[in-house]
Amino acid sequence: MLKVIAQDFIKAEFIDTVMPLYAELVEKTRQEELCIAYDLFIDQKDPGHFIFVEEWPDRAALDAHCRSEHFVRLVPLINQHQRQDPTFILMDPFAA
Amino acid sequence: MLKVIAQDFIKAEFIDTVMPLYAELVEKTRQEELCIAYDLFIDQKDPGHFIFVEEWPDRAALDAHCRSEHFVRLVPLINQHQRQDPTFILMDPFAA
Repeated sequence: MLKVIAQDFIKAEFIDTVMPLYAELVEKTRQEELCIAYDLFIDQKDPGHFIFVEEWPDRAALDAHCRSEHFVRLVPLINQHQRQDPTFILMDPFAA
Repeated sequence: MLKVIAQDFIKAEFIDTVMPLYAELVEKTRQEELCIAYDLFIDQKDPGHFIFVEEWPDRAALDAHCRSEHFVRLVPLINQHQRQDPTFILMDPFAA
């Protein structure tokens, strides 16, 4: 199992622009056969800070997501409004 | 619903020390009546970067967690081995 946190930082004046792009990205990604979870959240202290919490069976599934039509089309449209570079954390479950 | 991402950054030489502390924190927190989810992950690129993905019904439940016996006892033991300040993001679900 692969867990991912992806964080976007959108310029305040473009938040309304990206909202429908995010909505479509979430809807289409959840339809991917290998998608286990793809949930989007907004920082309570920063309305331009968008946080994806994702779950995939493995790295190959994440890579396939990043090659999907909706990802390749929508993410560049979102990214042109970033105020700083997005961040990505790929994580393994904790096992004591 | 309140979603939380809490991130710890542990000095490499103390990772073995904090593992059982995290294990107990996760076990005890999941027993809290108001805990919806309390999952711990480790950054694939940084074995000292620990990431909690939490879900609580509301802020009051999170605050009660932070006053719990296990939190008040274990978190300071973990924090003495941080290499930088922990971070916290309180988040609302995205709604387009």
